Amino acid sequence: MTETAQEQAAPATSRRIEPFVASVWPWVHDLEERNPEAVFFGGGVPPTDVIPVDRLRHGSERAWEDGADILLYGEVRGYRPLRELIAARMLTRGANVDPADILITNGAQQGIDLAARVFVDPGDIVLTEAPTFMDALRVFKSHEAETVGVPVDEFGLQVDVLETILDQLPKRPKFLYTVPTYQNPMGVTMSAARRRALVDLSQERGFVIVEDDPYGDLSFDGAPVPTLKSLDPDVVYLGTFSKILAPGLRVGWVASSPRLRESFFNVKEGTDIHNERIMTRAVFHASQGFLDDHIAATREIYRRRRDAMLAGLAREMPVGVHWTTPNGGFFLWVTLPEGYDTDAMLSDATDRGIIYLPSSWFYPDRSWNRSMRLNFSSQPEERITEAMRRLAETIAAV
Amino acid sequence: MTETAQEQAAPATSRRIEPFVASVWPWVHDLEERNPEAVFFGGGVPPTDVIPVDRLRHGSERAWEDGADILLYGEVRGYRPLRELIAARMLTRGANVDPADILITNGAQQGIDLAARVFVDPGDIVLTEAPTFMDALRVFKSHEAETVGVPVDEFGLQVDVLETILDQLPKRPKFLYTVPTYQNPMGVTMSAARRRALVDLSQERGFVIVEDDPYGDLSFDGAPVPTLKSLDPDVVYLGTFSKILAPGLRVGWVASSPRLRESFFNVKEGTDIHNERIMTRAVFHASQGFLDDHIAATREIYRRRRDAMLAGLAREMPVGVHWTTPNGGFFLWVTLPEGYDTDAMLSDATDRGIIYLPSSWFYPDRSWNRSMRLNFSSQPEERITEAMRRLAETIAAV
Repeated sequence: MTETAQEQAAPATSRRIEPFVASVWPWVHDLEERNPEAVFFGGGVPPTDVIPVDRLRHGSERAWEDGADILLYGEVRGYRPLRELIAARMLTRGANVDPADILITNGAQQGIDLAARVFVDPGDIVLTEAPTFMDALRVFKSHEAETVGVPVDEFGLQVDVLETILDQLPKRPKFLYTVPTYQNPMGVTMSAARRRALVDLSQERGFVIVEDDPYGDLSFDGAPVPTLKSLDPDVVYLGTFSKILAPGLRVGWVASSPRLRESFFNVKEGTDIHNERIMTRAVFHASQGFLDDHIAATREIYRRRRDAMLAGLAREMPVGVHWTTPNGGFFLWVTLPEGYDTDAMLSDATDRGIIYLPSSWFYPDRSWNRSMRLNFSSQPEERITEAMRRLAETIAAV
Repeated sequence: MTETAQEQAAPATSRRIEPFVASVWPWVHDLEERNPEAVFFGGGVPPTDVIPVDRLRHGSERAWEDGADILLYGEVRGYRPLRELIAARMLTRGANVDPADILITNGAQQGIDLAARVFVDPGDIVLTEAPTFMDALRVFKSHEAETVGVPVDEFGLQVDVLETILDQLPKRPKFLYTVPTYQNPMGVTMSAARRRALVDLSQERGFVIVEDDPYGDLSFDGAPVPTLKSLDPDVVYLGTFSKILAPGLRVGWVASSPRLRESFFNVKEGTDIHNERIMTRAVFHASQGFLDDHIAATREIYRRRRDAMLAGLAREMPVGVHWTTPNGGFFLWVTLPEGYDTDAMLSDATDRGIIYLPSSWFYPDRSWNRSMRLNFSSQPEERITEAMRRLAETIAAV
């Protein structure tokens, strides 16, 4: 127990917070300071003018009518009518979920954290898509999981490659984390055949599927896609109101199963007791009799913006640049020819007025640096068109 | 990778959620169902009629005036004016904290979890008081800390015993978790001399102090007690509006230090991004120009209730029963003579109309079963008086 004054000076933090240190967001903030005029195409949020603030405000006013009792502890799973509304919505995408199996969380981000806590011990394997949502990777690594990436193409996660990976792994993975619909970051959607194959494989090999579905309701072309949860009730499904209402509400959910619901209940209750109860009610009151129409209206806005971005890319991009064509959601994925480096290009892009998220952040091993995630949902068409011109300029200047 | 169908049937959950399975709360719910007439003296919440629901509601109405922008992501540390208000309040208890070092959390329970994540790797030692807040123990164990209890007497944590324990430990503990003021569950307050000795010892031996202070503002006799944080800026301080406004708001905070603030920021941002932003503002608007008066009024209510409980105990308890005399907060601690078992007595107490929390839940090793935590804040005096009579009956019937 002899320590030098130097060693005592800095409290020893844990290994497991180290994965949280590396974050794309401080870098983005620095870039925004570097050029405050630059338009940010890196986010994953609805545009401010689409947020139904009056409707939510009225929902909040109704919530307060429930009085002081709801300002006490209670409703660990969350306000029952909201869980019933969620179950009814999930049924429209094919999944029959008991509201008792739904747990309201502080956004889907907390759902990701709770899923990791429920399944992962240090050294366990977690499979993710590669690329995948970067802030899910940080959570899995913070729980000392070994993350293994499974490649994604335009039809979603490559289930045949997953099978090969499973054969080579030293032990059974705890779960596979996937965003099968309007994937983050690529915008692609897993085909029906691959969904079936993935569910069969998970049953055969004994790993859980964690389906993160923040964008699934935002379909542009045809009916919404049935969820993985609709194919297998043991899928752990993560949902959120962040993309269809507003992210600052911090209302998401986990839909698990009779076998897992107590585990999710326990870990939520043990770590922050429960969500704030007024906003949980406000989301219910705002959503009831409104959310379907609101989503239909926003789909139209986002579809036009996607079309503007696709048209801009087709017009401006040089030969050898490829991109995905999403049928919904917020993102598309642009890949440059060999020799380009989207990390290295980003300062120049910022100076030219466009900030994107470089691909390296979305890979467990940070290995791929020739792509970028572009958000098409948050800017009007003219600005998207202009930004694609500037992106082409940036590429030409390399 | 050969698995029987049986093994595949139940998804393997993690070791680290096991500590969350054992919870006093489901047991309490069963007891409440067993006798719905029984009065619950086990909670740690303000009574419903003391919650300033109209004031909070108006605070919420003002918050919505900030518009759609605050429904986006943002303000990971929390609404700046609220953090300034918190810093000003902490100064009245002697601690000079930069609002930049304050992070708004989903109640103090999340503060406990974040502190564990920032400091604890599996196998690390965490010191707690014995007895201590049971839901802090669950969190530390879920992070695979080894919890070591330090005894508490009427002057708080026994710092001389802590010194002996430190000499015997195989390695330096990461932190000591303490509720020094109106302690949970005993209601005692650490003396000024012990506070000084504890801070000196933590600096000498190189462990962090995590000061959980949910009740510190609720002083009954004289001025509020200066915090441990006032003696050492490196103390990690956990605060909450749960006990002075309402627990359902889920607004608490961590006050750390320039050296630790980034770690707390990162782990909050990584796990649930940030608190819900409307309620964070509502708490600010409701508190400004009101909270001091509100706290002063509630202190009077709680003091009268404490007096009623102390008088009832003095009148009703048989020889050999002892209890603490808290100068603030919500709880006192009753200890029965040798041979009694407060776990075993609880069903009979429930049938006689009083539910308490048995002491075993508050010890890392569950070893002490002759005490109980009684909450005096949530019931009117007459009911407290009657309950002490029934408690005496229960003890006499053993």
